[in-house]
Amino acid sequence: MGETSSRPLGVAVVGYSFMGKAHSNAWRNVGAFHPGCPPVRQQLLVGRDASAVKEAAGHFGWAESATDWRAVIERDDIDIVDICTPGHLHHDIAVAALAAGKHVLVEKPLANTLAEAEAMVAAADSAHGVRAMVGFNYRRVPALALARELITEGRIGEVRQVRAAYLQDWLADAAAPMTWRLRQETAGSGALGDLASHVVDQLHYLLGERVTSASGRLQTFVSTREGDNGPEPVTVDDAAWANLTTSSGVVASVEVSRMAAGRKNGLTIEVYGSRGSLSFDLERLNELGVQDDLGGRVSGLRRVLVTEEDHPYLEAWWPPGHTLGWDHTFTSQAADFLTSIARGAAPTPSFGDGLAVQRVLAAIEESAAGSGARVDVHQEGTH
Amino acid sequence: MGETSSRPLGVAVVGYSFMGKAHSNAWRNVGAFHPGCPPVRQQLLVGRDASAVKEAAGHFGWAESATDWRAVIERDDIDIVDICTPGHLHHDIAVAALAAGKHVLVEKPLANTLAEAEAMVAAADSAHGVRAMVGFNYRRVPALALARELITEGRIGEVRQVRAAYLQDWLADAAAPMTWRLRQETAGSGALGDLASHVVDQLHYLLGERVTSASGRLQTFVSTREGDNGPEPVTVDDAAWANLTTSSGVVASVEVSRMAAGRKNGLTIEVYGSRGSLSFDLERLNELGVQDDLGGRVSGLRRVLVTEEDHPYLEAWWPPGHTLGWDHTFTSQAADFLTSIARGAAPTPSFGDGLAVQRVLAAIEESAAGSGARVDVHQEGTH
Amino acid sequence: MGETSSRPLGVAVVGYSFMGKAHSNAWRNVGAFHPGCPPVRQQLLVGRDASAVKEAAGHFGWAESATDWRAVIERDDIDIVDICTPGHLHHDIAVAALAAGKHVLVEKPLANTLAEAEAMVAAADSAHGVRAMVGFNYRRVPALALARELITEGRIGEVRQVRAAYLQDWLADAAAPMTWRLRQETAGSGALGDLASHVVDQLHYLLGERVTSASGRLQTFVSTREGDNGPEPVTVDDAAWANLTTSSGVVASVEVSRMAAGRKNGLTIEVYGSRGSLSFDLERLNELGVQDDLGGRVSGLRRVLVTEEDHPYLEAWWPPGHTLGWDHTFTSQAADFLTSIARGAAPTPSFGDGLAVQRVLAAIEESAAGSGARVDVHQEGTH
Amino acid sequence: MGETSSRPLGVAVVGYSFMGKAHSNAWRNVGAFHPGCPPVRQQLLVGRDASAVKEAAGHFGWAESATDWRAVIERDDIDIVDICTPGHLHHDIAVAALAAGKHVLVEKPLANTLAEAEAMVAAADSAHGVRAMVGFNYRRVPALALARELITEGRIGEVRQVRAAYLQDWLADAAAPMTWRLRQETAGSGALGDLASHVVDQLHYLLGERVTSASGRLQTFVSTREGDNGPEPVTVDDAAWANLTTSSGVVASVEVSRMAAGRKNGLTIEVYGSRGSLSFDLERLNELGVQDDLGGRVSGLRRVLVTEEDHPYLEAWWPPGHTLGWDHTFTSQAADFLTSIARGAAPTPSFGDGLAVQRVLAAIEESAAGSGARVDVHQEGTH
Repeated sequence: MGETSSRPLGVAVVGYSFMGKAHSNAWRNVGAFHPGCPPVRQQLLVGRDASAVKEAAGHFGWAESATDWRAVIERDDIDIVDICTPGHLHHDIAVAALAAGKHVLVEKPLANTLAEAEAMVAAADSAHGVRAMVGFNYRRVPALALARELITEGRIGEVRQVRAAYLQDWLADAAAPMTWRLRQETAGSGALGDLASHVVDQLHYLLGERVTSASGRLQTFVSTREGDNGPEPVTVDDAAWANLTTSSGVVASVEVSRMAAGRKNGLTIEVYGSRGSLSFDLERLNELGVQDDLGGRVSGLRRVLVTEEDHPYLEAWWPPGHTLGWDHTFTSQAADFLTSIARGAAPTPSFGDGLAVQRVLAAIEESAAGSGARVDVHQEGTH
Repeated sequence: MGETSSRPLGVAVVGYSFMGKAHSNAWRNVGAFHPGCPPVRQQLLVGRDASAVKEAAGHFGWAESATDWRAVIERDDIDIVDICTPGHLHHDIAVAALAAGKHVLVEKPLANTLAEAEAMVAAADSAHGVRAMVGFNYRRVPALALARELITEGRIGEVRQVRAAYLQDWLADAAAPMTWRLRQETAGSGALGDLASHVVDQLHYLLGERVTSASGRLQTFVSTREGDNGPEPVTVDDAAWANLTTSSGVVASVEVSRMAAGRKNGLTIEVYGSRGSLSFDLERLNELGVQDDLGGRVSGLRRVLVTEEDHPYLEAWWPPGHTLGWDHTFTSQAADFLTSIARGAAPTPSFGDGLAVQRVLAAIEESAAGSGARVDVHQEGTH
Repeated sequence: MGETSSRPLGVAVVGYSFMGKAHSNAWRNVGAFHPGCPPVRQQLLVGRDASAVKEAAGHFGWAESATDWRAVIERDDIDIVDICTPGHLHHDIAVAALAAGKHVLVEKPLANTLAEAEAMVAAADSAHGVRAMVGFNYRRVPALALARELITEGRIGEVRQVRAAYLQDWLADAAAPMTWRLRQETAGSGALGDLASHVVDQLHYLLGERVTSASGRLQTFVSTREGDNGPEPVTVDDAAWANLTTSSGVVASVEVSRMAAGRKNGLTIEVYGSRGSLSFDLERLNELGVQDDLGGRVSGLRRVLVTEEDHPYLEAWWPPGHTLGWDHTFTSQAADFLTSIARGAAPTPSFGDGLAVQRVLAAIEESAAGSGARVDVHQEGTH
Repeated sequence: MGETSSRPLGVAVVGYSFMGKAHSNAWRNVGAFHPGCPPVRQQLLVGRDASAVKEAAGHFGWAESATDWRAVIERDDIDIVDICTPGHLHHDIAVAALAAGKHVLVEKPLANTLAEAEAMVAAADSAHGVRAMVGFNYRRVPALALARELITEGRIGEVRQVRAAYLQDWLADAAAPMTWRLRQETAGSGALGDLASHVVDQLHYLLGERVTSASGRLQTFVSTREGDNGPEPVTVDDAAWANLTTSSGVVASVEVSRMAAGRKNGLTIEVYGSRGSLSFDLERLNELGVQDDLGGRVSGLRRVLVTEEDHPYLEAWWPPGHTLGWDHTFTSQAADFLTSIARGAAPTPSFGDGLAVQRVLAAIEESAAGSGARVDVHQEGTH
């Protein structure tokens, strides 16, 4: 599959529910906002229910629908396979698609197990001429991309500590019913895998280095919920806490919860450096708090509305003051992926980046399973 | 042109710069999020520069481009004409399109003159079987739609006063150059027409009644700016103030400015009633401040994140906590227009609503031209 | 009365309710925080009810109490007369005290009528060796004092427009009973005199110049309230609006209300200049919003916590980060008054400053009584 | 020492710097705002430097000064000994004063060592007719007292998790010089003892139960600072993290730092329960965030301005909307202490409460000294 193909790149998305809808939106719009990217063709939407996926394909702008992903990835008119299925299918589809010479985008988390994630990294490393990326879409929030730039430039000095949380409240009500997300066999983990994964990837992204040790705790506050057949044990965590150290010695605290009444999508990150600090809240994703001094008569945290033309990703969108929403991050992600394809360059976050996150989560789980003591995270092979 | 056509409705957008891009985005996405609406076909993008409009059409998802709007509105495969040109062209295109039996959507303001606006209302009133709407897109901000619902339900009691502003800062720098927007002959007015029009429409929308008297003031703080041929007088207002009264006696204060350093898109509205209050800031458009009592031990202004499924327009989008951006309002606007077409019902805001806003602005100008005394606004024929 | 007296200055406060309590607090504490000021002796608290004032004097730290202010101001051991009575008594006490050679501090507003205020200014001008000040305590809010410094230094450039409001809600409930504050004969005016007076004084203070023209509007939303003897008409304004111009051409909008549900003490001031802006909210009086540029990649409104040692008034109080409350402003006011006494220098705000505010309020009332047209404010003799 | 003494209670404060000034302020003002409390007489200020303490006594309103605390506590005219010295003197003064039959108030922390703290609790337990209290003044922040009431009433349901921090930035600058506060031998610990002590006491106060297990981490980011004799090692922590569990199973995360650029006095507490949540920030101490439901159409975090008459401590102060500052908490603390003396009832926080906090801090240190594993906190004898 060449990067220099003159026809539009054919895209297939596997999965058509929440993430499939978000990714479809990205492919439908990327050309309008990123005319410099290679053009794409929304060819195929893949799902298990033939009639439902056909209807979704019609609404979401796809030329066709299909039910067998294995057949799809063999098609010559498909250049990009975008995997939006539940996590346990990521490995098989990604490995097969890479083997078939397709570019692959996988929704986070990379896989449900470390072994699968490692195999996927190996597959990506051995594939030639194709690109593999994992979909941590918050790397495309302009305010967070700006934060990374400011950190890299040294504007807040040497980073010392990060205070991060991802708080939601959809399980705060003890009467909320049992779902597959609350069973370990189907979901893998709870708030840890779902929410802390975003936080850890942001740490890696913002700081440009990896977490190398972790201590942690997991808690299930509501241990039984009403299922279809009566009360059923909840076997994943409702909340998790971690204390992390990066390779250069930054200390990061992490708290994630699905029980935090009043917080809907509260990914908050505060970064403290030797010369200033940054703060962010996903519920106000167009804003970045910036303090780039250590005090003084008119010193204070600035509320930067990240909608200027010279802010990351903003050139593609609207004039200053016109805010973006959550879904715009997926369109920017698609553009970044297309750019990496066009340039023949490795995209970020890579599968290795996805594996690096999962190794941190595994270390947190290991620590939590004991008495919370610190454990090392071995990050070899996550580049 | 029937509303019951079985083929997708053919759309033509006239204009392809900022607003043309925003409206194109809406037509491209409305089907994905509003599968219940009549399907549309992005047929034609119209502009004066053949090569530029062709390129834009390609990026924005249009099947064709054209340069002659008169020819376009005659085409049988065009059902909807969406006018995104500068204001002085609105009248001619809209009247012709209505006469040709097309549904018409016109960007705000309805027209540059009261006479043109009145003629457009007359044209819309006499057209049969087609719908005419003016594009005050902020009516589709979920938080503002929720505000209207709450007011209508009486949750804050009888409204007494509204404190509103629309503050931007792109002219705060006296060194910012002269543009056509700062010449009366091309722009009509300055902050008043551009910004106060949104505020006044929101008053009408939120309160469900019209402004019937107005006093006002206009100010040009930087009276000369550097143009291509040297210094040139600025002949429109940089800022404007108004004190308005509605038919039921609500008092509204309005302040608009392009000189408000630090405010990028600060449309702020506070509504005070006999039993509570509401507050809104467009820079945080996913939030509504709600106080629905008159005090007490745990009383205070609530920050409502307007992203729940039972919030206006949200069902079409994403799960709770996943925010929208500025451009989503245009997609919802397109959906509302399509729904009114499907139902054969009058859309809002109608051309009459657009005229009503302009009559208020004219009254403010009249007051400001004198000593700022209150003048009546005659709202007949604006329904 | 010499400024160089070696014994502590004897203070008498006239009035012992809300303002008397606040001023007593100031005199009790000024020495502890301002050891460089002339020492004071809390000698006398004066009130009409002998037993009540005696009890209050005991609690508030006064050596004696008395009921006859005329006798008090003649006493040799009284150097400062601080007038906290209702406004209609200000004139007589102040003029007599000045004639008796006492320093005089008068709570705002200076007087209930322009004629009285003018007479007081004349009395202050003709008194020798004594100081006269009016108590606009918000001039001693550190954040507002900092704002004035920043404006004076030119940090936000040339000021163009000010957006100000003072919103409270204690009358929002239509069932709130009739009081003397809602009768014109006792209260003079409503929100205008009570709240707009603070706003206008702040304009004069922050900008260092006077308001020279005004247009305005007054509104009584609840025209009848339940009194002791049944329903009774409300004869003062519940809310007021004004549009003001200063001598240099700054335009200020003012809105005040006692009907703004949810706002308890919401004095908010936004100042927009040619190079930045400032913002303030009395409900968060330890903070000042500062933007001192016109934009850029990390530009935004800074939240300055005004508790640093180099902030105005802060040296007297606590280390950085330890906030002040409302009442601290009165202690700082007392310190400023004592300093002016010690230096033999004119204090600010002077009686002339108090008169200047009242002339603006009178102009607003005059405009409001007509059709809201702009009227001139004659500021001679208000220096 | 009887509680029913008819003469005012004689107070001696030991220490006259920052805390001595704050406590002096409290004793000077408590009578004015709490006329129902037993009256007090500001008799003696004690300090080592005779001339400096004499001057301070004069400014702060004390009748006398002295240098020998042992002589002072023997005096018959002293009823209350208020200890504001450095921590290593707390034990000796408190134990001697209790033995001399005086009521004792000790600034936090109770003592520098667990052994001293335990001895002080024993001394307080065996003293008869006198009251002993430790000065965690933030228990008198009205918003936090309201938070406790709301939690106790069950308004946010069963508490599950608490997210707390105390962030300052006075050491963020690596060039800030060495001080005694950064040497273990003089300061005991760093951010942990200074800041986390407040957080832990708030946990005990708000939840009405004790922390029973802890894991923790300490970090010194700037390990050497410039002292009078050249570079010197910093031997206390700059920042600390802890994960705590209370007796009922609430999980609390704690982060404290003196390196958090931009935070001046940022004690922030978020409490999440099964039916709602609360949030607080000491930099905005007049406000409490309250969410008392689990969602809905107009649900959101309410900003409650805690200045109403029915809010804790507010009746003593000013009308609604008139905010308090940091120092008011000490006046309320004095009033609470006097009330407990008058009633012959045990005050809170007791010495036992102070010991309970120190046991938690000791457990955090123990955990941090190892690999961060969880350790039990034995809370016997801390009642």
